[in-house]
Amino acid sequence: MKEQVFTYEQLYEFTRNVFKHIGCSDAHADTATAVLLSADLRGIDSHGIARLIGYVRLWEAGRINARPDIRIIHESPSTAVIDGDAGLGLVVAPYAMQVAIEKARTAGTCWISVSNSNHFGIAGIHAMMALEAEMIGIAMTNASALVAPTFSVERMLGTNPIAVAIPAGTEPPFVADMATTTAANGKLELLQRKDAAAPLGWVQDRDGQPSTDANILKQAGALLPLGSDRDHGSHKGYALGSIVDIFSAVLSGASYGPWAPPFPAYVPMPDNMPGKGLGHFFGVMRIDAFRPAADFKDHMDNWIRRFRAAKPAAGQERVLIPGDPEREMEQERSSNGIPLAESVVTELRGLAGKLQLSHPF
Amino acid sequence: MKEQVFTYEQLYEFTRNVFKHIGCSDAHADTATAVLLSADLRGIDSHGIARLIGYVRLWEAGRINARPDIRIIHESPSTAVIDGDAGLGLVVAPYAMQVAIEKARTAGTCWISVSNSNHFGIAGIHAMMALEAEMIGIAMTNASALVAPTFSVERMLGTNPIAVAIPAGTEPPFVADMATTTAANGKLELLQRKDAAAPLGWVQDRDGQPSTDANILKQAGALLPLGSDRDHGSHKGYALGSIVDIFSAVLSGASYGPWAPPFPAYVPMPDNMPGKGLGHFFGVMRIDAFRPAADFKDHMDNWIRRFRAAKPAAGQERVLIPGDPEREMEQERSSNGIPLAESVVTELRGLAGKLQLSHPF
Repeated sequence: MKEQVFTYEQLYEFTRNVFKHIGCSDAHADTATAVLLSADLRGIDSHGIARLIGYVRLWEAGRINARPDIRIIHESPSTAVIDGDAGLGLVVAPYAMQVAIEKARTAGTCWISVSNSNHFGIAGIHAMMALEAEMIGIAMTNASALVAPTFSVERMLGTNPIAVAIPAGTEPPFVADMATTTAANGKLELLQRKDAAAPLGWVQDRDGQPSTDANILKQAGALLPLGSDRDHGSHKGYALGSIVDIFSAVLSGASYGPWAPPFPAYVPMPDNMPGKGLGHFFGVMRIDAFRPAADFKDHMDNWIRRFRAAKPAAGQERVLIPGDPEREMEQERSSNGIPLAESVVTELRGLAGKLQLSHPF
Repeated sequence: MKEQVFTYEQLYEFTRNVFKHIGCSDAHADTATAVLLSADLRGIDSHGIARLIGYVRLWEAGRINARPDIRIIHESPSTAVIDGDAGLGLVVAPYAMQVAIEKARTAGTCWISVSNSNHFGIAGIHAMMALEAEMIGIAMTNASALVAPTFSVERMLGTNPIAVAIPAGTEPPFVADMATTTAANGKLELLQRKDAAAPLGWVQDRDGQPSTDANILKQAGALLPLGSDRDHGSHKGYALGSIVDIFSAVLSGASYGPWAPPFPAYVPMPDNMPGKGLGHFFGVMRIDAFRPAADFKDHMDNWIRRFRAAKPAAGQERVLIPGDPEREMEQERSSNGIPLAESVVTELRGLAGKLQLSHPF
């Protein structure tokens, strides 16, 4: 697979100009760009600039409001519901996390369900907003239905990720960010580009039979919940994806399950949508609402060091802490630049031409 | 496998007498009995009366305080930390959930981390306490280390379950209750009794090689995190188990990771324990802190019906909602009695003889 390497600054300037082109304010264009590109920096290539054209197409289709009036429509001391006014999830999510952090200062924790939003990039970057405030951050979202529940052939859930960021002391923070499927859709897209087979247990065909075809979703196949099959706990992945769907969309009044709005703008919206747009769910917990932050951080450092020192299996170099690979990738790419697949570069060049924007591609 | 069937009332009277024998108050004996036997009613046989003798042995070893002074040691409007005073988790957990429900009435939600506790039975029954109050309930706990992180051969985490109970309207509630491993330890115990092999992906041997030996934990093997191996997402199960450990024990001051106190009383306590006893974590969220409860329930009914109607795979009768199998088992066993394996009956008969208690065995 051919790649070209760009600096973060090159991609930042171009992406920001695209968001400004569709009508975002300066502040929103900055936020959306930083969130989108955090995926490229952290190595989750499927969720970064490769999706920029997808956001533009949603805007062209009238599904994204570039000047949203994001607002709290309901609240209690430790909760809020936010209406994203069809804005970019890339700006709605940081807005909601900021509200959560502010409210948690008084209440100890805050939990926010968001309706009427769009895709928000990687969940992890939103959860990580809490770290600087010495809080634990949680972020989740529902998404276009691609996943079949255990025993089913129907696509009912998105890959519905859960991210949890936990501060430590001198060790780097614990940051888990996971789709509730065996493999994220982005991993499948990577195999499609290489024309490679998927491991058994990632997808099934339209009849519910195991498949290794990375293109099976184009033939009415489905992604499988974490666990892959009933014997290996797929009912748990199905339950986790369902919880994300309910917290994000049923609590907030967004559209849920098979009615979640599809990300590709060419896919028609589902009939009889029961709510507005995509839903997200965020939580923050102040550490010192439980115990002194210094004590907690000491014990988190101890936890992290003990797990890092766990005896590796034969042939394995080391045991990882959630967040290690993404943090190391971010250091690497901040120094050496961000590689983009040739197909992504071609698409971005086309986008730049169409919008008549200067570009590095 | 031979079985004998008992009524709930027979098992209740005997279990209550055992808890009274070790010194529990009438109220605590009732609570502990109801929680323990909810596992037998709901078909999670590994966590019910089969463990009664294990609790007695912990009490004999001085690890369980039958007259605990359970108390809040820290709080904010939406949080608390509770010290279980080495009490039975079976009574500490309902106490904590009651505090959470009361505090959530004012704050909208409440999140409680518990230290200095013991095994609390099934997580689901605690989460379900929130349902009657029109709240979402969440329960998790750390446990004796039996699970190796991805890439490791060392047992660092317990099966660390997560339970989430969500109220509905006319439909039964959504109740997920899952170990964060591919298979719960109880399922392995079932295979041991039958002398049957485990599916690949449940356990590994002491060198980290895949194994089908249901007895491999006795030879320094380990349970595998949900996902089974790296290709199938075991790093996600490892992250989920870690989050449960940190929320339950690092936030509260309980003992975490490989230092979690072992359930079998004959296993010595780990050296240099970093905290006190086992830890739990509970959360409740008032539905109407997000949207009117009637609206939410209507949409939950719609969610449940839509998922129940998802097209089944060939050879499958129907798609289940989390909580369906346990609820159906509870109806069945409430009517027809609770079957106990002959080995469990023999053990209980021995216990009754030793404590000189009347019994139905």
